[in-house]
Amino acid sequence: MRALEGVLLTPLRIIDTPGGDVLHGIKQDAPGYDGFGEAYFSTVNPGVIKAWKRHHEMVLNLVVPEGAVCFVLFDDRPESISFGEFQKVTLSRSNYQRLTVAPMLWVGFQGVSEGTNILLNIASIPHRPDEADRLALEKIEYHWEN
Amino acid sequence: MRALEGVLLTPLRIIDTPGGDVLHGIKQDAPGYDGFGEAYFSTVNPGVIKAWKRHHEMVLNLVVPEGAVCFVLFDDRPESISFGEFQKVTLSRSNYQRLTVAPMLWVGFQGVSEGTNILLNIASIPHRPDEADRLALEKIEYHWEN
Repeated sequence: MRALEGVLLTPLRIIDTPGGDVLHGIKQDAPGYDGFGEAYFSTVNPGVIKAWKRHHEMVLNLVVPEGAVCFVLFDDRPESISFGEFQKVTLSRSNYQRLTVAPMLWVGFQGVSEGTNILLNIASIPHRPDEADRLALEKIEYHWEN
Repeated sequence: MRALEGVLLTPLRIIDTPGGDVLHGIKQDAPGYDGFGEAYFSTVNPGVIKAWKRHHEMVLNLVVPEGAVCFVLFDDRPESISFGEFQKVTLSRSNYQRLTVAPMLWVGFQGVSEGTNILLNIASIPHRPDEADRLALEKIEYHWEN
Protein backbone atom coordinates (compact mmCIF):
# COMPACT_ATOMS: atom_id res chain seq x y z
CA MET A 1 0.00 0.00 0.00
CA ARG A 2 1.60 3.26 -1.11
CA ALA A 3 1.45 6.48 0.87
CA LEU A 4 -1.35 8.89 0.11
CA GLU A 5 -0.42 12.31 -1.19
CA GLY A 6 0.40 14.44 1.86
CA VAL A 7 1.14 11.52 4.18
CA LEU A 8 4.58 10.92 5.58
CA LEU A 9 5.97 8.14 7.75
CA THR A 10 9.17 9.03 9.59
CA PRO A 11 11.04 6.36 11.57
CA LEU A 12 11.89 7.56 15.07
CA ARG A 13 14.51 6.51 17.58
CA ILE A 14 13.86 4.75 20.85
CA ILE A 15 16.92 5.29 23.03
CA ASP A 16 17.50 2.54 25.55
CA THR A 17 18.61 4.27 28.75
CA PRO A 18 19.04 2.70 32.20
CA GLY A 19 15.72 2.48 34.03
CA GLY A 20 13.56 3.40 31.06
CA ASP A 21 13.67 4.50 27.45
CA VAL A 22 13.65 7.87 25.75
CA LEU A 23 11.35 7.98 22.73
CA HIS A 24 11.72 10.69 20.15
CA GLY A 25 8.58 12.55 19.06
CA ILE A 26 9.17 15.55 16.84
CA LYS A 27 11.63 18.41 16.54
CA GLN A 28 11.05 21.85 15.11
CA ASP A 29 13.21 21.02 12.07
CA ALA A 30 11.78 17.54 11.46
CA PRO A 31 10.12 16.32 8.26
CA GLY A 32 6.40 17.02 8.46
CA TYR A 33 6.63 19.63 11.21
CA ASP A 34 4.34 22.49 10.30
CA GLY A 35 4.31 24.70 13.39
CA PHE A 36 3.02 24.11 16.87
CA GLY A 37 -0.61 24.65 17.77
CA GLU A 38 -1.36 22.07 20.42
CA ALA A 39 -0.25 18.73 21.79
CA TYR A 40 -2.88 16.31 23.10
CA PHE A 41 -3.34 12.61 23.71
CA SER A 42 -6.12 10.32 22.60
CA THR A 43 -6.56 6.93 24.19
CA VAL A 44 -8.48 4.23 22.43
CA ASN A 45 -9.71 1.10 24.14
CA PRO A 46 -8.91 -2.32 22.69
CA GLY A 47 -10.92 -2.99 19.53
CA VAL A 48 -12.62 0.39 19.57
CA ILE A 49 -12.71 2.33 16.29
CA LYS A 50 -12.80 6.11 16.25
CA ALA A 51 -13.72 7.21 12.74
CA TRP A 52 -14.05 9.31 10.61
CA LYS A 53 -12.62 12.80 11.03
CA ARG A 54 -11.17 15.28 8.56
CA HIS A 55 -9.39 18.55 9.30
CA HIS A 56 -9.45 21.48 6.93
CA GLU A 57 -6.38 23.22 8.34
CA MET A 58 -4.68 21.08 10.95
CA VAL A 59 -1.62 19.02 10.04
CA LEU A 60 -1.44 15.99 12.34
CA ASN A 61 1.78 14.48 13.62
CA LEU A 62 0.93 11.23 15.34
CA VAL A 63 3.12 9.09 17.59
CA VAL A 64 2.14 6.03 19.65
CA PRO A 65 4.26 5.69 22.82
CA GLU A 66 2.16 2.97 24.47
CA GLY A 67 0.13 0.10 23.03
CA ALA A 68 -0.66 -0.11 19.34
CA VAL A 69 -2.98 1.98 17.19
CA CYS A 70 -4.05 1.13 13.64
CA PHE A 71 -4.60 4.25 11.55
CA VAL A 72 -6.63 4.18 8.36
CA LEU A 73 -6.51 7.18 6.03
CA PHE A 74 -8.81 7.78 3.08
CA ASP A 75 -8.30 10.22 0.27
CA ASP A 76 -11.40 11.62 -1.42
CA ARG A 77 -9.74 14.74 -2.81
CA PRO A 78 -10.61 14.69 -6.53
CA GLU A 79 -7.42 16.51 -7.51
CA SER A 80 -5.13 14.15 -5.59
CA ILE A 81 -2.91 11.58 -7.26
CA SER A 82 -4.09 9.10 -4.62
CA PHE A 83 -7.80 9.92 -5.02
CA GLY A 84 -10.00 7.06 -3.86
CA GLU A 85 -7.20 5.21 -2.08
CA PHE A 86 -6.78 4.06 1.50
CA GLN A 87 -3.61 3.84 3.58
CA LYS A 88 -3.32 1.74 6.68
CA VAL A 89 -0.50 1.77 9.20
CA THR A 90 -0.21 0.35 12.70
CA LEU A 91 2.07 2.27 15.02
CA SER A 92 3.53 0.97 18.27
CA ARG A 93 6.94 0.77 19.93
CA SER A 94 7.77 -2.12 17.62
CA ASN A 95 6.93 0.02 14.57
CA TYR A 96 7.93 3.33 16.07
CA GLN A 97 7.33 6.01 13.48
CA ARG A 98 5.69 9.40 13.21
CA LEU A 99 2.68 9.65 10.93
CA THR A 100 2.20 13.06 9.35
CA VAL A 101 -1.23 13.69 7.84
CA ALA A 102 -2.03 16.67 5.62
CA PRO A 103 -5.38 18.46 5.91
CA MET A 104 -8.42 17.14 4.00
CA LEU A 105 -7.65 13.45 4.43
CA TRP A 106 -10.14 11.31 6.33
CA VAL A 107 -8.66 9.69 9.43
CA GLY A 108 -9.86 6.77 11.50
CA PHE A 109 -8.06 4.71 14.11
CA GLN A 110 -8.51 1.59 16.15
CA GLY A 111 -7.02 0.39 19.45
CA VAL A 112 -5.06 -2.77 18.71
CA SER A 113 -3.26 -3.74 21.90
CA GLU A 114 -5.16 -5.35 24.77
CA GLY A 115 -3.61 -2.85 27.18
CA THR A 116 -3.60 0.92 27.00
CA ASN A 117 -3.38 2.48 23.55
CA ILE A 118 -2.21 6.08 23.49
CA LEU A 119 -1.53 8.40 20.62
CA LEU A 120 0.03 11.83 20.84
CA ASN A 121 -0.92 14.40 18.24
CA ILE A 122 1.42 17.35 17.79
CA ALA A 123 -1.05 19.48 15.91
CA SER A 124 -0.09 22.46 13.79
CA ILE A 125 -3.01 24.56 15.08
CA PRO A 126 -4.99 24.44 18.32
CA HIS A 127 -8.20 22.40 18.38
CA ARG A 128 -11.02 24.30 16.65
CA PRO A 129 -14.23 22.38 16.01
CA ASP A 130 -15.16 24.50 12.99
CA GLU A 131 -12.21 23.30 10.94
CA ALA A 132 -13.05 19.59 11.31
CA ASP A 133 -15.71 17.38 9.71
CA ARG A 134 -16.97 14.07 11.01
CA LEU A 135 -18.56 11.14 9.24
CA ALA A 136 -20.14 8.09 10.83
CA LEU A 137 -18.05 4.92 10.63
CA GLU A 138 -20.24 3.26 8.01
CA LYS A 139 -20.20 6.26 5.67
CA ILE A 140 -16.79 5.29 4.33
CA GLU A 141 -16.66 1.62 3.45
CA TYR A 142 -13.60 -0.05 4.88
CA HIS A 143 -13.01 -3.54 6.20
CA TRP A 144 -11.73 -2.94 9.73
CA GLU A 145 -10.17 -5.89 11.52
CA ASN A 146 -12.03 -7.27 14.52
CA MET B 1 5.36 22.81 49.93
CA ARG B 2 5.27 26.02 47.91
CA ALA B 3 6.22 26.30 44.26
CA LEU B 4 9.79 27.20 43.42
CA GLU B 5 10.39 30.41 41.52
CA GLY B 6 9.87 29.59 37.83
CA VAL B 7 7.75 26.50 38.43
CA LEU B 8 4.13 26.35 37.37
CA LEU B 9 1.48 23.69 37.82
CA THR B 10 -1.45 23.95 35.43
CA PRO B 11 -4.47 21.66 35.82
CA LEU B 12 -5.42 20.02 32.54
CA ARG B 13 -8.63 18.49 31.28
CA ILE B 14 -9.25 14.82 30.63
CA ILE B 15 -12.23 14.59 28.30
CA ASP B 16 -14.18 11.37 28.64
CA THR B 17 -15.14 10.33 25.13
CA PRO B 18 -16.70 7.01 24.03
CA GLY B 19 -14.05 4.34 23.60
CA GLY B 20 -11.21 6.31 25.17
CA ASP B 21 -10.29 9.66 26.64
CA VAL B 22 -8.77 12.80 25.20
CA LEU B 23 -6.09 14.29 27.44
CA HIS B 24 -5.00 17.87 27.00
CA GLY B 25 -1.27 18.59 26.84
CA ILE B 26 -0.35 22.13 25.91
CA LYS B 27 -1.53 24.83 23.54
CA GLN B 28 0.49 27.59 21.97
CA ASP B 29 -1.24 30.20 24.14
CA ALA B 30 -1.08 28.22 27.40
CA PRO B 31 0.55 29.34 30.64
CA GLY B 32 4.18 28.25 30.64
CA TYR B 33 4.43 27.71 26.89
CA ASP B 34 7.72 29.15 25.73
CA GLY B 35 8.02 28.06 22.10
CA PHE B 36 8.37 24.65 20.54
CA GLY B 37 11.73 22.96 20.20
CA GLU B 38 11.03 19.27 20.57
CA ALA B 39 8.57 16.79 22.01
CA TYR B 40 9.89 13.52 23.44
CA PHE B 41 8.87 10.84 25.91
CA SER B 42 10.77 9.40 28.82
CA THR B 43 9.68 6.17 30.40
CA VAL B 44 10.77 5.31 33.90
CA ASN B 45 10.48 1.85 35.35
CA PRO B 46 8.75 1.31 38.74
CA GLY B 47 10.90 2.59 41.59
CA VAL B 48 13.69 3.82 39.33
CA ILE B 49 15.02 7.33 39.99
CA LYS B 50 16.49 9.43 37.19
CA ALA B 51 18.34 12.35 38.76
CA TRP B 52 19.76 14.99 38.61
CA LYS B 53 19.64 17.11 35.48
CA ARG B 54 19.62 20.87 34.93
CA HIS B 55 19.04 22.78 31.71
CA HIS B 56 20.57 26.16 31.05
CA GLU B 57 18.13 27.17 28.30
CA MET B 58 15.35 24.63 27.93
CA VAL B 59 11.97 25.27 29.52
CA LEU B 60 10.31 21.93 30.30
CA ASN B 61 6.60 21.29 30.04
CA LEU B 62 5.90 17.89 31.54
CA VAL B 63 2.75 15.80 31.33
CA VAL B 64 2.16 12.21 32.47
CA PRO B 65 -0.44 10.41 30.34
CA GLU B 66 0.21 6.90 31.71
CA GLY B 67 1.29 5.66 35.11
CA ALA B 68 2.58 8.03 37.77
CA VAL B 69 5.82 9.97 37.98
CA CYS B 70 7.12 11.78 41.06
CA PHE B 71 9.12 14.87 40.15
CA VAL B 72 11.50 16.50 42.60
CA LEU B 73 12.87 19.95 41.81
CA PHE B 74 15.71 21.66 43.65
CA ASP B 75 16.60 25.32 43.52
CA ASP B 76 20.25 26.23 44.10
CA ARG B 77 20.09 29.61 42.36
CA PRO B 78 21.52 32.05 44.92
CA GLU B 79 19.41 34.96 43.62
CA SER B 80 16.14 33.03 43.76
CA ILE B 81 13.46 33.66 46.37
CA SER B 82 13.19 29.87 46.74
CA PHE B 83 16.96 29.29 47.05
CA GLY B 84 17.75 26.04 48.83
CA GLU B 85 14.20 24.69 48.58
CA PHE B 86 12.77 21.51 47.10
CA GLN B 87 9.44 20.99 45.38
CA LYS B 88 7.87 17.58 44.91
CA VAL B 89 4.86 16.73 42.79
CA THR B 90 3.49 13.42 41.58
CA LEU B 91 1.69 13.57 38.25
CA SER B 92 -0.69 10.94 36.90
CA ARG B 93 -4.16 10.81 35.41
CA SER B 94 -5.56 11.23 38.90
CA ASN B 95 -3.50 14.41 39.38
CA TYR B 96 -3.49 15.49 35.78
CA GLN B 97 -1.52 18.71 35.53
CA ARG B 98 1.25 20.19 33.44
CA LEU B 99 4.50 20.95 35.24
CA THR B 100 6.45 23.86 33.77
CA VAL B 101 10.07 24.10 34.87
CA ALA B 102 12.26 27.14 34.19
CA PRO B 103 15.92 26.71 33.25
CA MET B 104 18.57 26.31 35.99
CA LEU B 105 16.46 24.22 38.33
CA TRP B 106 17.64 20.70 39.15
CA VAL B 107 15.15 18.02 38.15
CA GLY B 108 14.86 14.40 39.21
CA PHE B 109 12.01 11.97 38.77
CA GLN B 110 10.93 8.53 39.89
CA GLY B 111 8.57 5.93 38.43
CA VAL B 112 5.76 5.44 40.92
CA SER B 113 3.20 3.16 39.30
CA GLU B 114 3.86 -0.57 39.01
CA GLY B 115 2.93 -0.43 35.33
CA THR B 116 4.32 1.79 32.60
CA ASN B 117 5.27 5.33 33.62
CA ILE B 118 5.50 7.80 30.75
CA LEU B 119 6.22 11.49 30.71
CA LEU B 120 5.98 13.78 27.73
CA ASN B 121 8.23 16.81 27.63
CA ILE B 122 7.23 19.63 25.32
CA ALA B 123 10.61 21.34 25.34
CA SER B 124 11.16 24.94 24.29
CA ILE B 125 14.37 24.07 22.41
CA PRO B 126 15.58 20.85 20.76
CA HIS B 127 17.77 18.52 22.82
CA ARG B 128 21.34 19.86 22.99
CA PRO B 129 23.71 18.10 25.40
CA ASP B 130 25.86 21.23 25.88
CA GLU B 131 23.07 23.16 27.59
CA ALA B 132 22.44 20.53 30.29
CA ASP B 133 24.35 19.53 33.43
CA ARG B 134 24.09 16.27 35.29
CA LEU B 135 24.80 15.39 38.89
CA ALA B 136 24.88 11.94 40.43
CA LEU B 137 21.85 11.08 42.58
CA GLU B 138 23.71 11.33 45.89
CA LYS B 139 25.14 14.77 45.13
CA ILE B 140 21.90 16.47 46.12
CA GLU B 141 20.62 15.13 49.39
CA TYR B 142 16.97 14.24 49.21
CA HIS B 143 14.93 11.54 50.85
CA TRP B 144 13.36 9.68 47.94
CA GLU B 145 10.55 7.24 48.73
CA ASN B 146 11.27 3.56 48.16
